[in-house]
Amino acid sequence: MSEKKRGAAIAALKRALGKAVLTGDSLPPRAGIDNARLVFHPSAYIRVENEEQVAKVLLLANKHGVPLTLRGAGSATTGSASPSENGWVLDLTALDSIRIDATAGMAHVGAGATTENINIAAEKEGWFYPPDPSSKKHSTIGGNLATNAGGLRGAKYGVTRDYVFALEGFLPTGERVRWGAPLRKFASGFNVRDLWIGSEGALGVITSATLKLLPKPEARQTFLFGFTSDAQALRAAISVMKARLVPAIMEFMDRQTVDCALRRRREKGPETNRLLKKVTGAFKKAPALLLIELDGRAAVVREDRKHLLELFAKFHGVSARDEAEAESLWEIRRTCSQAMFQMGDTKLNEDIVVPISSYLELLRYTLELKKETGLATPTFGHAADGNFHVHLMYNHGDPAQCRAAERGVKLLMEKVVDLGGAITGEHGIGLAKSPFLKLQHNKAEIEAMLAIKRALDPKDILNPGKMFTPFAMWKHPRDYATVMPWDKH
Amino acid sequence: MSEKKRGAAIAALKRALGKAVLTGDSLPPRAGIDNARLVFHPSAYIRVENEEQVAKVLLLANKHGVPLTLRGAGSATTGSASPSENGWVLDLTALDSIRIDATAGMAHVGAGATTENINIAAEKEGWFYPPDPSSKKHSTIGGNLATNAGGLRGAKYGVTRDYVFALEGFLPTGERVRWGAPLRKFASGFNVRDLWIGSEGALGVITSATLKLLPKPEARQTFLFGFTSDAQALRAAISVMKARLVPAIMEFMDRQTVDCALRRRREKGPETNRLLKKVTGAFKKAPALLLIELDGRAAVVREDRKHLLELFAKFHGVSARDEAEAESLWEIRRTCSQAMFQMGDTKLNEDIVVPISSYLELLRYTLELKKETGLATPTFGHAADGNFHVHLMYNHGDPAQCRAAERGVKLLMEKVVDLGGAITGEHGIGLAKSPFLKLQHNKAEIEAMLAIKRALDPKDILNPGKMFTPFAMWKHPRDYATVMPWDKH
Repeated sequence: MSEKKRGAAIAALKRALGKAVLTGDSLPPRAGIDNARLVFHPSAYIRVENEEQVAKVLLLANKHGVPLTLRGAGSATTGSASPSENGWVLDLTALDSIRIDATAGMAHVGAGATTENINIAAEKEGWFYPPDPSSKKHSTIGGNLATNAGGLRGAKYGVTRDYVFALEGFLPTGERVRWGAPLRKFASGFNVRDLWIGSEGALGVITSATLKLLPKPEARQTFLFGFTSDAQALRAAISVMKARLVPAIMEFMDRQTVDCALRRRREKGPETNRLLKKVTGAFKKAPALLLIELDGRAAVVREDRKHLLELFAKFHGVSARDEAEAESLWEIRRTCSQAMFQMGDTKLNEDIVVPISSYLELLRYTLELKKETGLATPTFGHAADGNFHVHLMYNHGDPAQCRAAERGVKLLMEKVVDLGGAITGEHGIGLAKSPFLKLQHNKAEIEAMLAIKRALDPKDILNPGKMFTPFAMWKHPRDYATVMPWDKH
Repeated sequence: MSEKKRGAAIAALKRALGKAVLTGDSLPPRAGIDNARLVFHPSAYIRVENEEQVAKVLLLANKHGVPLTLRGAGSATTGSASPSENGWVLDLTALDSIRIDATAGMAHVGAGATTENINIAAEKEGWFYPPDPSSKKHSTIGGNLATNAGGLRGAKYGVTRDYVFALEGFLPTGERVRWGAPLRKFASGFNVRDLWIGSEGALGVITSATLKLLPKPEARQTFLFGFTSDAQALRAAISVMKARLVPAIMEFMDRQTVDCALRRRREKGPETNRLLKKVTGAFKKAPALLLIELDGRAAVVREDRKHLLELFAKFHGVSARDEAEAESLWEIRRTCSQAMFQMGDTKLNEDIVVPISSYLELLRYTLELKKETGLATPTFGHAADGNFHVHLMYNHGDPAQCRAAERGVKLLMEKVVDLGGAITGEHGIGLAKSPFLKLQHNKAEIEAMLAIKRALDPKDILNPGKMFTPFAMWKHPRDYATVMPWDKH
């Protein structure tokens, strides 16, 4: 697009939306980056205040042929919320209404409401919104819907998609639509609702949603178990699945992960967490860990607790006696993501999924990859649904490490697909996974997706260049200096 | 299509598939009708025996421009499995494999497996497939997926869509695809899986699926309660929802329904069902009924039973002491569908959905409609999810009654949409609901659906003329003489 055309488009945008449009020096500092930390430069940043403005932006973007990137908090890890083709960024965070229908067990929410605020509102009425991406304090429901966000409770409670009755918003061309309805059953017409969910902002703009709530669990019980090896921890996790225990959460942390998390805690002074010390103290090296949470009706949690403790009788573990102790057990898991930066200044976080029959082979492969690439491969994840986060840590300034990371991620993706797994379980494709889409899907599948994209977005306005065009993540500089709201540096 | 072209296409089909192709006198007697009982005449009926044959049929249908109607058992109630544009019928019932993965809690099934057989296989391994359309003994999972079948357990357990990890099959153009994966999380690419589910055979051919299973409930408890009025029964149902009891099943039967069900039972001789007599005996006229089933962990069912009996202390009810008694309580519900034919030889079964706040208004309206049309409007349905089956009973030979039925169904659909409801909760659109699609969806929504259809099925081969082209159900003769496998005449 020529400079003149770009200017004319922005002038029209400003005439239509006034002070909602930020450009030039008034662009917010994080306008061009999401949590993938790639740096791009939008020509305008639009903080819409109502749905009518969304329609106006879409009409203008179509008229002037301007790429449009949708954005909530920007906590996406794949670059799907970063304006890789510049153009305009549409920030929906102001649409943050939340209304709980306590009789129907539904939440009516704006796209900008955060996942945590939705749950807080629901819990006040005795209800519960289960999906819990680890970004939940900041991430908006619009972003959760765009990526079909998962989280720690997936095996028991499913993912975002499992809690959506209706979506309202706009087609890429600007027409207002509703998919589904605020009802428990709906079988009219093609289900575009679920096509929008997980489409990463490429097929429509979600402005509001009606979500399904569950009765708030009466009780929860949190446990932390230590294991002498990663394999022992995974075998223990599989035994839980075979016993049909269905924990709400069963987080695996491998020894590489636990080692750096404990080291980071030690840097801050002597370990003060009594329960954590009790579990890890018995191990000469860092143990592998399983953090397990049972929840539900009190009578069931009591029975399942007994069952779990029998099953794990030979392992070293603690159980929280109250909420405060449960929170203290979570501290170790919450340290993991940031602690890994001890091993490299740059992270590839690969949220792969493998079948339960391949857990041990995946683990073996992360260690082979460590040897093969010379990079740390700390791995943690959701051991009840097979969604493991394998990380490749490297220093971006070191060209040899960059090449090793590139080779490593390719090998990992090939291995995962060989094992019958998924290249992404909850982050989506965005830019980060785009080189691997063809490993996961055959030509006919990709052509069908592209045909749908062309049908709904004929001018290719929404998030162009993502998902289908391979992007070399490891070749692009990334900005870890800009502080994002969720950073715990 | 000319007779010559039609003949050439069939000759090519026979060359490719041999004895799988039935034509002329060898057409099966039910080739042209599904449970909507509309009569059409396909030019060929194809019993495919493997997936390769499906691909061949699709390629030939595209080459020769022949409409293709997919079919399982044919228990669809909307005409979606009947060949309204003649052409070829593709019968997938032979693809009936079932394999349970007991560790992963998944069922790998062919499209032709019946819902009941899947559940029998799952239960052998201690697992449970919750969706239970009332046709489950006969209906195939392929049909359940095509219509996103619901059933009685919707409020607690959701619908078919909620239990699907992966679909395999063919694009309308014949290319083989898989959507989703046999994994608990999958976030790669656009979610065409859920677009296929509920698309009524118009966007692709499902040949197999991987389904999610739940641990089999330890216990269930069945209750039957009688109420002096329909409104009292519905208010009681709402009080259950407000108490967050979440029963597996809460079936409402209005007095019109119960009246004809009891009359039909009396025709067969004196009532022998002790529990049913106990509930209905106290009422001078037929009572309205709620059939309630609690299920889950034994400790929870015990607690919820106590809670429910407290809540319903003032009503007249019985609870089953064992499985045999539970089955005997179900007898009344199972009589309802057929018993209604006392009120007319032809039925419009409208599976509408309304919000919980509109239950009483819907009920009032069914009685207004009865008065307005002079037709019986017996109503039963799933009172925990708002999915009520409102029936209009009429005699097809009586032109005045046909006009009244037509007027009645239009008025009902308008009312339902006014109440914020859905014109269909579990049957889908097919031919029966096609005149009302525009009540439910705006122009932009329908255009988007059609754009997707054109993108995936450019030659309009799969189920053409359904859903989007208004069809006047009440003007077409229907065949109730041909006995379908589920008929209990």
